Amino acid sequence: MTGPVKITSKTEVEEFLSKYDDFLFDCDGVLWQGDVLLPKVKETLDLLRARGKRLIFVTNNSTKSRKAYTKKFFKLGIDVTAEEIFGSAYSAAVYLKKVVKFPADKKVLVLGESGIEEELANEGIQFVGGTDPTLRRDIEPEDYDKIGPDPSIGCVLSGLDLHLNYLKLSMALMNLQVPETLFLATNIDSTYPTHGKLFPGAGTMCAPLVLASKRQPISLGKPSKAMMDCVKAKFEFEPTRTCMVGDRLDTDIRFGQDGDLGTLLVLTGVNKESDILAENAEIVPMHYMTKLGDIFELLI
Amino acid sequence: MTGPVKITSKTEVEEFLSKYDDFLFDCDGVLWQGDVLLPKVKETLDLLRARGKRLIFVTNNSTKSRKAYTKKFFKLGIDVTAEEIFGSAYSAAVYLKKVVKFPADKKVLVLGESGIEEELANEGIQFVGGTDPTLRRDIEPEDYDKIGPDPSIGCVLSGLDLHLNYLKLSMALMNLQVPETLFLATNIDSTYPTHGKLFPGAGTMCAPLVLASKRQPISLGKPSKAMMDCVKAKFEFEPTRTCMVGDRLDTDIRFGQDGDLGTLLVLTGVNKESDILAENAEIVPMHYMTKLGDIFELLI
Repeated sequence: MTGPVKITSKTEVEEFLSKYDDFLFDCDGVLWQGDVLLPKVKETLDLLRARGKRLIFVTNNSTKSRKAYTKKFFKLGIDVTAEEIFGSAYSAAVYLKKVVKFPADKKVLVLGESGIEEELANEGIQFVGGTDPTLRRDIEPEDYDKIGPDPSIGCVLSGLDLHLNYLKLSMALMNLQVPETLFLATNIDSTYPTHGKLFPGAGTMCAPLVLASKRQPISLGKPSKAMMDCVKAKFEFEPTRTCMVGDRLDTDIRFGQDGDLGTLLVLTGVNKESDILAENAEIVPMHYMTKLGDIFELLI
Repeated sequence: MTGPVKITSKTEVEEFLSKYDDFLFDCDGVLWQGDVLLPKVKETLDLLRARGKRLIFVTNNSTKSRKAYTKKFFKLGIDVTAEEIFGSAYSAAVYLKKVVKFPADKKVLVLGESGIEEELANEGIQFVGGTDPTLRRDIEPEDYDKIGPDPSIGCVLSGLDLHLNYLKLSMALMNLQVPETLFLATNIDSTYPTHGKLFPGAGTMCAPLVLASKRQPISLGKPSKAMMDCVKAKFEFEPTRTCMVGDRLDTDIRFGQDGDLGTLLVLTGVNKESDILAENAEIVPMHYMTKLGDIFELLI
């Protein structure tokens, strides 16, 4: 592996683009920061499309379905189809349907929001929990008798659940004490960066369950191999002709590396130039540039 | 260290009792199972008192204050005073007051129930969170702007919180990102055994915070040294003349061993005889007996 090569000239952009047919993009910190589109992102994406490149947007956000997530792009003026988006909720649904071949008569107990429910429903997978309003309440004395392993539940799937509570955690734990129950997580990000601050991430939803059940979930988000397998199965790209673009070394760049893809780090998010030039840097991208919009700016 | 010695005769009971002046008791699995008093427990405790032994009841339960916990004893017909009980909520309050000398102008952010609030109030320590009804709600869009580190908060104290939610976790995480904020847990039990099942324990409340903040709390419950230091400071017993009685090797017996106390395992709770006689047994008590009530039954 060579690198990191900093891309700063027209020639370097042309050389970079000639290497890849398909591009996988992380979104937050690459395309936008929160609700603000980064400079020349739209122009760069249009340019890549005009040159016949295929664009795939990969996100660990499980609270929105792919369809709901397109609205975020539209609001910022970017054209996209749901088919070009690969979210961790969709990843989990595909994993259950295609890899596990989850039984039609079993249900998934969801700790999470509507994004997971919509993707499971799209794949014809039965589920309970999720946004069910009857579970958005305190645990009551009679629940301690009632709650137990439910033989109809074959999987606990945990994502970011803004309505997490002790009742749902208890239900999930009971089912995880049955060794046959699958334990999946849409992703295990420890934090959720928003509003310039770090809030608890999806990984903190399953942390109580990991501790109490002594089990580890299979993660279907970056940087897991399970997600990469699902992406590859869907888009059938040639890894050496595909580049993963992201702002985080430990998720995006590692995800690309583990999948034998090319990697491009942009410096508009979490990691800085000093992180990859440090002597003890563990994860180093093949290429990096100041911002994604440099592709457009350097070419014109 | 010798042991394990199984106590099965009157002579062995007399020899055992002659070694100790003070007895520390775990409660659930030793005195009672759930709401059922174990056989001859009352008679045994009366006998020990009649022989001039001092009794101290040590519990990791943080949901009740010592005073509230006496009611559990009374309901089962056991005489006890709040001063004889040492709960993890009290342990945390004592630690803050005596060991840390927590500043009077700072507040503790509590993830937990009224037991913690009452013990903090008794020690004159200011707190927020806990059972505050205004925090028992979903996180709202405006909270993402509002929530942040609060300079008046000097400590996050986490116990079993049956009303845990994303809002409180977010507030705690913001304050834990300030390195000066103390991070305490009443205890870090992974599970909470009740109704013959394992529910999420107090340790699962701080698990999300441990993951997201990359910090470990100081635990004030068994088997932590911090709790033992607090117990010793309060009761000023002679360790070699004191015996820790419990049903769990990894909490009770380890707690006694680490404090250089004598140890007695009773087989009415979590661990069985085979656990201590196994060749690879890591934690072995000095003494063990079938049930605590054997002390009374073997002597009469």
